[in-house]
Amino acid sequence: MQEMNIRPIQKKDLCDVLDLIKELAVYEKEPDAVEIDEQDLAKSAFGDPPDFYCLVAEFKGQILGMALFYHRFSTWKGKSLHLEDLIVTQKYRQQGIGKALFEAVLHEAHQQKLKRVEWVVLDWNQSAIDFYKKYQATIFDDWRTVQLDEENLKKFANASL
Amino acid sequence: MQEMNIRPIQKKDLCDVLDLIKELAVYEKEPDAVEIDEQDLAKSAFGDPPDFYCLVAEFKGQILGMALFYHRFSTWKGKSLHLEDLIVTQKYRQQGIGKALFEAVLHEAHQQKLKRVEWVVLDWNQSAIDFYKKYQATIFDDWRTVQLDEENLKKFANASL
Repeated sequence: MQEMNIRPIQKKDLCDVLDLIKELAVYEKEPDAVEIDEQDLAKSAFGDPPDFYCLVAEFKGQILGMALFYHRFSTWKGKSLHLEDLIVTQKYRQQGIGKALFEAVLHEAHQQKLKRVEWVVLDWNQSAIDFYKKYQATIFDDWRTVQLDEENLKKFANASL
Repeated sequence: MQEMNIRPIQKKDLCDVLDLIKELAVYEKEPDAVEIDEQDLAKSAFGDPPDFYCLVAEFKGQILGMALFYHRFSTWKGKSLHLEDLIVTQKYRQQGIGKALFEAVLHEAHQQKLKRVEWVVLDWNQSAIDFYKKYQATIFDDWRTVQLDEENLKKFANASL
């Protein structure tokens, strides 16, 4: 794909980016999990400061993939980058688009002199794990992600009024 | 501890906050892992925008604990809060300081109308897991944290020049 272009998101891409997000949710069997809309995305992508950064892979005017990331902070190392989503539309997988997006994110982190790049992977996704290990990434087997969702956050807040 | 005060970090607290960060690193048997210094912390805590927010627990002029957090972004839910560190100095544990800090963070997330609060826990830390479950938090057993550290990020960037 020599004509593929990796570039920052623009306002005209928001609809395609939301489609990619929804495609991933359907693939992960959670079609109703996507609660944000184009307006929310716009506000967060182009705010001052933005809530996230996004690179898109464009090929002949079509958006085929995206990488969405933002800064985090490690109290041991300093400012880092978190890769939240790396999505390639199903029809165009296995053609190096994901790799190109992933490496563009690594270059971005290096240019910004960040101390770490972090993301999550499903423990059964061996092909992804093998891919990440080629970059000498470390998989932390004993850490677990914990989340308190909006509903339970509200319940807590109301109960402690 | 009725006289305990939970409040945002101030410049005068930076040394105590760094001491807490280092105390945790020693406790986790990684005393040399803390690479940041007071100046880095100051730049990130009081930047515009700051890289993180921090609440401290103060008792009779002493800083006994801290909660450090920042925003993240979920492409399904929207803007969320990540709790990076919750530290109480060893001598003052089991007195409700950690709970007070944790709940102050939840209140902050609720006031900001954030969609989720997220953090990580070690899978063998059953007392912490039990504590979080009281708030109806979800532990994700099949997600693994992946990190590419600064050294390997540099190696990648240099190899692809």
